[in-house]
Amino acid sequence: MRISKKELFEISLKVLTKHSVPEDQARIIADTVVYAHASGKGTHGATRLGVYVSKIKSGFMRPDTILSKISEKGAIGVYDAGHGFGQVAAFRAVEKAIEKSIVHGVGISSVRHSNNFGTASYFAKQATEQNKIALIFSNAAPAIAPWGGSRPLFGTNPVAFGFPTPTDTSPIILDMAVSNAARGKIRLAEKNGEKIPFGWALDPDGNPTDDPTLAILGSMLPIGEHKGAGLAIVVDLLAGLLTGSGFAGRVKPLNTLNDYSDNGHLFLVLDATFFMDIESYYERMNFLRVTVKENNLKNEILLPGERSYSNERRYTETVEISDNIYQEIKYLL
Amino acid sequence: MRISKKELFEISLKVLTKHSVPEDQARIIADTVVYAHASGKGTHGATRLGVYVSKIKSGFMRPDTILSKISEKGAIGVYDAGHGFGQVAAFRAVEKAIEKSIVHGVGISSVRHSNNFGTASYFAKQATEQNKIALIFSNAAPAIAPWGGSRPLFGTNPVAFGFPTPTDTSPIILDMAVSNAARGKIRLAEKNGEKIPFGWALDPDGNPTDDPTLAILGSMLPIGEHKGAGLAIVVDLLAGLLTGSGFAGRVKPLNTLNDYSDNGHLFLVLDATFFMDIESYYERMNFLRVTVKENNLKNEILLPGERSYSNERRYTETVEISDNIYQEIKYLL
Repeated sequence: MRISKKELFEISLKVLTKHSVPEDQARIIADTVVYAHASGKGTHGATRLGVYVSKIKSGFMRPDTILSKISEKGAIGVYDAGHGFGQVAAFRAVEKAIEKSIVHGVGISSVRHSNNFGTASYFAKQATEQNKIALIFSNAAPAIAPWGGSRPLFGTNPVAFGFPTPTDTSPIILDMAVSNAARGKIRLAEKNGEKIPFGWALDPDGNPTDDPTLAILGSMLPIGEHKGAGLAIVVDLLAGLLTGSGFAGRVKPLNTLNDYSDNGHLFLVLDATFFMDIESYYERMNFLRVTVKENNLKNEILLPGERSYSNERRYTETVEISDNIYQEIKYLL
Repeated sequence: MRISKKELFEISLKVLTKHSVPEDQARIIADTVVYAHASGKGTHGATRLGVYVSKIKSGFMRPDTILSKISEKGAIGVYDAGHGFGQVAAFRAVEKAIEKSIVHGVGISSVRHSNNFGTASYFAKQATEQNKIALIFSNAAPAIAPWGGSRPLFGTNPVAFGFPTPTDTSPIILDMAVSNAARGKIRLAEKNGEKIPFGWALDPDGNPTDDPTLAILGSMLPIGEHKGAGLAIVVDLLAGLLTGSGFAGRVKPLNTLNDYSDNGHLFLVLDATFFMDIESYYERMNFLRVTVKENNLKNEILLPGERSYSNERRYTETVEISDNIYQEIKYLL
């Protein structure tokens, strides 16, 4: 079904404030929920509101996110999210990194003791809207085994890269997990009694499987085999080890109700004007876009982030949401 | 065959200085050649000496690499390698990024008008030896088509990440191309009249192929399908577009003798002490290493870069080199 963006925003806002999230923070989170649906990433949207509520009630997630400063020196800010909302921590951390990038050409915000922040692309877009380039790394609960191992130790660990483009073209935003498939797809196959393709996951003994139940008990396969497994470690080092957050298997899923999640995030923001004048940058960006589009005139080639951008623009007032989720969030009111 | 590191260094040095490379620069390049063989990446080593010589003779590569400063502001240095050696440009650019990271917590060197720099891990190691973290991006000649396209536009674009570790353990260094296979493996299959696995490459019409000849005429497949294709663009944006170098299909292979190669590189160096005290960082690194090793006690699990590190340490005095390449480089003397 489709509902208005305004309705989804208002429901999200009410659910959150009802559970002690301060209104200004609830507005940030509600906006990320609407964005998730508007950009075609509904799996990171309203469906999580119930999980946030449960986690707040459990005492292992703070409704009020105070991003405390551990240190600020040079271009580096180190912050503690105090086990609050990842979205609020990320939004404020990106603001701070943008400020620093204007001074130093690059600004970095390190965030510890956070939670899942929803879609990484939201925060890449926050930077591109200020004409900044963003590199975003977050770790997540164990899903991928080290290469040669069998038990999950690293998350599917989202990375996002955002590049501003000339007005009226989609910013280039690559937002991806380092696994071949999303865990959600495997859960869906299990629910529907379907097999999954080999190449998505390993069973608990470390063997390839097409059985979604064994896959969930086992581990997810990273992109490019040992390469993606290496990337999963790199993201854990940047977002978990270096930030002072959970790492090496210590991050817990959002739906864990007897412990903090302890995700970490690292945000790098670059100011392109320290590299060249902005006109040259945009001219080069246009050249890239045209060259990519002309590469194959039979198929439309999409740049990273272009599908989300088109989704957002096709429906300016409404978003897609499943009937179930809609009932679920209304029930939370 | 195995030859002494000293001999390989001396041959490389002589070949390079004979062709007008200044001795201090030739020493840097010779060291990267020895490192490539010592760390098990001989494909990036001595075999390229002949190509450098040809390219210098063609007039499209400068033997003397002057890394000119375009601008230095805040944490960002923008440099021009003047179509000299990628290795010399990279080495000096990393030195400058390290210096800046000590002041700002992060230092970035942007390099335009360069050439292939050999193994990215050499420069990651240069940073880890100074207790710094490195993120390295370089673009390369077209080999990968945009996702949905058929003609190569982006390189296999190496990325490297380096993290210092406590003394007497291997630094964590992930050095990877964003393609499933190296082009060299496809050339080897062609030479040997063998098929290649599906999944490595597409033919010139954009269809999967197991024929190495069609693969070379076609394009390489990126890791994780659209994800790796997206990463190839991101690296081109960071290392080519943003640096002011060739990008969007304009970088030429090293063996092109009628044009400059025009590779670009971007080096980001982080100082971990801006995030936490170095003892905590190393303690956490030890915890990660132990946790990874204990993940599977039946297989030895290697961390990224550990195999190269072991290769280097197993033979402290000698390196592996093929008979052919040995004859080839002696002939260049």
